[in-house]
Amino acid sequence: MACDEFDLITRYFDRCRKNHQGVKLGIGDDCALLTVPEKQWLAISTDTLVSGAHFLPNINAADLAYKALAVNVSDLAAMGAEPAWLSLALTLPEVNEAWLKTFSDSLFEQLDYYHIQLIGGDTTRGALSLTLTIHGRLPAGKALTRAGASVGDRIYVSGTLGDSAAGLALLQNRWPVDQRPIDDDADRELLIQRHLRPQPRVYLGLLLRNVASAAIDISDGLIADLQHILKASNCGARIELDKLPYSETLKKCASAEQARHWALNGGEDYELCFTVPEINCGSLEASLNQAAVAYTCIGQLISPDEDIRFFTAGKFIQPLLQPFKHFTVTKVDDE
Amino acid sequence: MACDEFDLITRYFDRCRKNHQGVKLGIGDDCALLTVPEKQWLAISTDTLVSGAHFLPNINAADLAYKALAVNVSDLAAMGAEPAWLSLALTLPEVNEAWLKTFSDSLFEQLDYYHIQLIGGDTTRGALSLTLTIHGRLPAGKALTRAGASVGDRIYVSGTLGDSAAGLALLQNRWPVDQRPIDDDADRELLIQRHLRPQPRVYLGLLLRNVASAAIDISDGLIADLQHILKASNCGARIELDKLPYSETLKKCASAEQARHWALNGGEDYELCFTVPEINCGSLEASLNQAAVAYTCIGQLISPDEDIRFFTAGKFIQPLLQPFKHFTVTKVDDE
Repeated sequence: MACDEFDLITRYFDRCRKNHQGVKLGIGDDCALLTVPEKQWLAISTDTLVSGAHFLPNINAADLAYKALAVNVSDLAAMGAEPAWLSLALTLPEVNEAWLKTFSDSLFEQLDYYHIQLIGGDTTRGALSLTLTIHGRLPAGKALTRAGASVGDRIYVSGTLGDSAAGLALLQNRWPVDQRPIDDDADRELLIQRHLRPQPRVYLGLLLRNVASAAIDISDGLIADLQHILKASNCGARIELDKLPYSETLKKCASAEQARHWALNGGEDYELCFTVPEINCGSLEASLNQAAVAYTCIGQLISPDEDIRFFTAGKFIQPLLQPFKHFTVTKVDDE
Repeated sequence: MACDEFDLITRYFDRCRKNHQGVKLGIGDDCALLTVPEKQWLAISTDTLVSGAHFLPNINAADLAYKALAVNVSDLAAMGAEPAWLSLALTLPEVNEAWLKTFSDSLFEQLDYYHIQLIGGDTTRGALSLTLTIHGRLPAGKALTRAGASVGDRIYVSGTLGDSAAGLALLQNRWPVDQRPIDDDADRELLIQRHLRPQPRVYLGLLLRNVASAAIDISDGLIADLQHILKASNCGARIELDKLPYSETLKKCASAEQARHWALNGGEDYELCFTVPEINCGSLEASLNQAAVAYTCIGQLISPDEDIRFFTAGKFIQPLLQPFKHFTVTKVDDE
């Protein structure tokens, strides 16, 4: 794209007229120049989204910009970091100005919402994909890592689980044949929006810094992501399946078994899974009362010998596990 | 790639056993955690390399890793920043372990050379491409931007120009028909290596912080890149074409006219173009004597009304300008 690259960047992405949040120099030089306040740490995360693997090829540009940023910001939320700066590498098969306008309008709406400044990136020609590198800040030593949990800590999740997987099934016309079709368009739309427009739990992450021992965002499904905490913290987990939180819509539209499957294995909910030492559980409500998102205790960390043990009505069961793989190119092409 | 993604990262990219350079937490959590020393600024740059557009599809994995990092580090050199951390987003059509081993061995060889720590990234399945986000540090306020130059400043380039374009022509079997074929394999190899293995001028960039007024790395060709300085600094330029520095090999293998064309429009030399106020020109030799790279004064900044004016033997001429476009997919496919 070489030559028109600069025009593109200038027209659609260089919208910031006033640097903020430690930005000494933004888009337009060999590098951006940034400062980090004393006693603050920087948190950095990179996500690539490839057409057909992480989003459906027919996704609209506004939804794509929304989701790409949400997925990337969600990593900061899981660390307890406050969003600050974004680098965006955009690879496009062609220069489509209408697409670029829609994409960049949606992106900047979200950037403004989170007070994030776009500080640079690259625009290249090729198969549609995006790589975002988000930078956030947090007080030194206050990060929510995966490794801070201990046996006995309570396990919580924010919001509700499984809606995103249900929404993806609807978008792909593969609603399970053993489930009753959804009559109500509002229900369909809600589930689809939960997939297309997940809400990263940034503010919850900030509030958790003083009470949680570990956290992760649920991108690959509760089981897969909880296992990262278990491995890093050397713990097992006891999960009370009856406590898993579902939306009213999912409870209405899917069987209990299907909802549970999506909650455990579905992925892309972008809720937080976090652990809280028992000593902090009493003050949790007071600490999180401004978060404006529900949270539910779903179990407790146990000895690492036990891995994950699932219980329902007090009895041990072994649910079907099926690691989440976003969706493969084959699946998308099949539709 | 979801599930094996973690295995891949662990096996080939998570080699760092000891964090360095302000890294509190490296690969393996939702974010990396970093610190920046007081009175230091962070410099950040992102580059995407797409197969067929920025490298030949048949490039070997070691050369690809080398070049991707060199291109990205070169942006730090142009800013006068010292390399520190890298995020790598790698999109691969398939999991080829031999390829991954060669690629990662080459990458870590270069990372070690520059004392850069790989702090994270993403591994996805799709058409081969790489996005690198490099982070460097520099003393507050000491960056070499494009905007610091003034009318009267001398214009310099490091090293020699045009070799990379000549090497690319050889790699693509499109050595100009009006040029004598190269007999000596050592000459061919030197030019090809200058294309495949450019040497970012990191140390030169550090030394220039106290003497240069502006700098840029030559990725798109001298003319295209110098124009960014001219625009940002509101200057024109007078270029003495007879002063352009060429390698002995290029002088031997190409006509003077062809060498000049490649030097002006060729791109991918990754030398630095920098400007020095006349008052600093006297101390330049002393300042740069440790840089171990030649540098040549090729002209002077003039009034912005004049844009770029080219002179040879004291006479104004208008050389053929042809903006560099790396190489297009079509060109590569044509070979």
